[in-house]
Amino acid sequence: MEKMKIVATAKQVPERVVTNDDLAGLMDTSDDWIYPRTGIHNRHVVTDENTSDLATSVAQKLLKEAGWAASDLDFIIVSTMSPDALSPHTSAIVQGNIGAEKAFAFDINAACSGFVYGMSVASSFLSSGRYQKGMFIGAEVLSKLIDWKDRTVSVLFGDGAGGVLLEASDEEQGLLSEELETFGDRGEAILTGRFANKNAFAGEISPLDPYFHQDGRGVYSFATREVPKALDKALQKANLSADDVDFYLAHQANHRIIESIAKNFGQSMDKFPTNMVEYGNTSAASTAILLDELYKSGQVKPGMTVAFVGFGGGLAIGAQIWKL
Amino acid sequence: MEKMKIVATAKQVPERVVTNDDLAGLMDTSDDWIYPRTGIHNRHVVTDENTSDLATSVAQKLLKEAGWAASDLDFIIVSTMSPDALSPHTSAIVQGNIGAEKAFAFDINAACSGFVYGMSVASSFLSSGRYQKGMFIGAEVLSKLIDWKDRTVSVLFGDGAGGVLLEASDEEQGLLSEELETFGDRGEAILTGRFANKNAFAGEISPLDPYFHQDGRGVYSFATREVPKALDKALQKANLSADDVDFYLAHQANHRIIESIAKNFGQSMDKFPTNMVEYGNTSAASTAILLDELYKSGQVKPGMTVAFVGFGGGLAIGAQIWKL
Ligand SMILES: CC(C)(COP(=O)(O)OP(=O)(O)OC[C@H]1O[C@@H](n2cnc3c(N)ncnc32)[C@H](O)[C@@H]1OP(=O)(O)O)[C@@H](O)C(=O)NCCC(=O)NCCS
Ligand SMILES: CC(C)(COP(=O)(O)OP(=O)(O)OC[C@H]1O[C@@H](n2cnc3c(N)ncnc32)[C@H](O)[C@@H]1OP(=O)(O)O)[C@@H](O)C(=O)NCCC(=O)NCCS
Repeated sequence: MEKMKIVATAKQVPERVVTNDDLAGLMDTSDDWIYPRTGIHNRHVVTDENTSDLATSVAQKLLKEAGWAASDLDFIIVSTMSPDALSPHTSAIVQGNIGAEKAFAFDINAACSGFVYGMSVASSFLSSGRYQKGMFIGAEVLSKLIDWKDRTVSVLFGDGAGGVLLEASDEEQGLLSEELETFGDRGEAILTGRFANKNAFAGEISPLDPYFHQDGRGVYSFATREVPKALDKALQKANLSADDVDFYLAHQANHRIIESIAKNFGQSMDKFPTNMVEYGNTSAASTAILLDELYKSGQVKPGMTVAFVGFGGGLAIGAQIWKL
Repeated sequence: MEKMKIVATAKQVPERVVTNDDLAGLMDTSDDWIYPRTGIHNRHVVTDENTSDLATSVAQKLLKEAGWAASDLDFIIVSTMSPDALSPHTSAIVQGNIGAEKAFAFDINAACSGFVYGMSVASSFLSSGRYQKGMFIGAEVLSKLIDWKDRTVSVLFGDGAGGVLLEASDEEQGLLSEELETFGDRGEAILTGRFANKNAFAGEISPLDPYFHQDGRGVYSFATREVPKALDKALQKANLSADDVDFYLAHQANHRIIESIAKNFGQSMDKFPTNMVEYGNTSAASTAILLDELYKSGQVKPGMTVAFVGFGGGLAIGAQIWKL
């Protein structure tokens, strides 16, 4: 076990709720189509915030909850596939906004596995002994990367942010194991956010295309096939069986994918809490938002064993087992 | 000391060389203006490659040099502020291209400090004991983020990639110390790569702006003032004096900035090798390209003490001291 502690959790979602019925007013879709296939009724969408704004709110809530000063932080990591810009990086904006004078900051991109990959990097900084106190946030404004006329993707995603404070600990708690996997040969299954590649000398190499494109069926079968295998490897590394885990906190892409994973593991859906019904798929933010809600409701508590599970763009997968 | 070893180095730059005279044909500038202020004569610019292509070439060269199989790799990290796209992440494309079946992959963005920040993350994975063999690449195609009519930025940057293989080691070599700093409150000094922030509900929050904008003087005074202080802290943590370092490998933004840092440290420019004359500023790739050239020429050798120094967008700074 790598000893460390999740000291606080927080989330921030935009106020504006967009229902399936709202979307049905914009394009040829319906709640009857969306909900049974995805488990999604609503998503929250920004009206004037960008990714760093959501992340900054999370950062402020985290410090308040833990009673930490911004100056206590050694580092700030933000996982995002929808940063404010390529520079400055979103984590640097957060660092400046909260005045974390001692903290260095950088962004990570591992798409919808961003929560697990970010937890991996943050925990590794603590395990190396180099740093003691870190902030990790997953934050997305996916709505700016969506073609709101394309019903095949726009119904799936939402905006939001969530995060944790992590601290090195001497107690018997922390990261038990992780299994991170990448399948770059299947990367074409989820495409997003391409600046034009052109210059004065070569002309246009590839055109601007900010929007999501997805092979929905490909991603579906990838996730239902590969995630259980990765989770199994993570459990084996931790010397645990599926029953030993109190809760599986999976990336909230799709209710049916999560049902399939639960079934595959012989576990009841009670152990696989979901909230995509309200937020849609918020990529790197989804597991952090879920974790915060479960902490706040008292369902997830210190002492429990939980699995974090991510999957999506890259394609990539991540699973971590924690003793909280 | 965190014990580990830089096992191999490699670089890849596009073939096409663009001289200051070439730029003088496109806009109102000249070699007489550019060279004395920056130390740059040439830069290499892509004709049909994207960031993942340069990074893949580096990855292949690294494996060949070390005699490693792709399947030996535990992880692949790419630092970039100019990824092919927001998804799939560039490191995942590299992972797929080289067939590194066991390796997970993710991207980091810390702009021009990307080499040092990436080395920090990669080394921390080894120090944590979690992984043994990693690949870290800095790769940029900045030419796609440049307005080639804007002389205030287009003359400064170039495309390229460089990287290292890292392995856990039992010998007395590795990372001696690091000092990473972020100044997010000054982030506006370097802006790049902003997708439009708009959606069907809020309209346009911010417009598309892919291009670099820079407060040149602000960045210049930031770097000359803050980098020596950060380097000093890194040396103190390692219990070393400036004289103990054989070579300072600084981010190749500008010859005058590096001269100022050398002077500040009472060190000769012989200890601050440069190559921006040929490549311009290649952001996260610059120090990796320089390191490879110095290894290949035999100037930098195992047993030496070197400092890696990054600075730029964020704003951010990073310094690491290594015993090679
Ligand atoms: C996206 C997903 C719900 C689509 O379900 P599906 O059963 O595969 O549906 P298909 O894409 O085959 O489309 C079936 C039909 O519905 C239509 N359709 C697609 N989106 C629709 C929508 N929002 N409303 C109404 N009809 C829609 C299609 O055009 C197609 O019509 P056709 O048969 O006339 O051509 C499903 O593939 C999925 O959940 N994939 C995983 C996606 C995911 O989670 N990605 C993120 C991972 S991080
Ligand atoms: C960019 C830099 C070389 C500019 O030098 P400077 O002395 O500050 O020059 P200024 O920006 O004040 O411009 C001086 C004049 O030259 C002009 N100019 C700017 N770029 C020019 C170019 N490429 N060719 C010709 N003239 C140019 C300006 O328009 C200005 O003209 P004006 O006096 O008529 O208004 C310098 O600020 C610098 O090196 N900054 C650091 C940049 C850097 O390294 N950034 C990346 C960090 S990772």
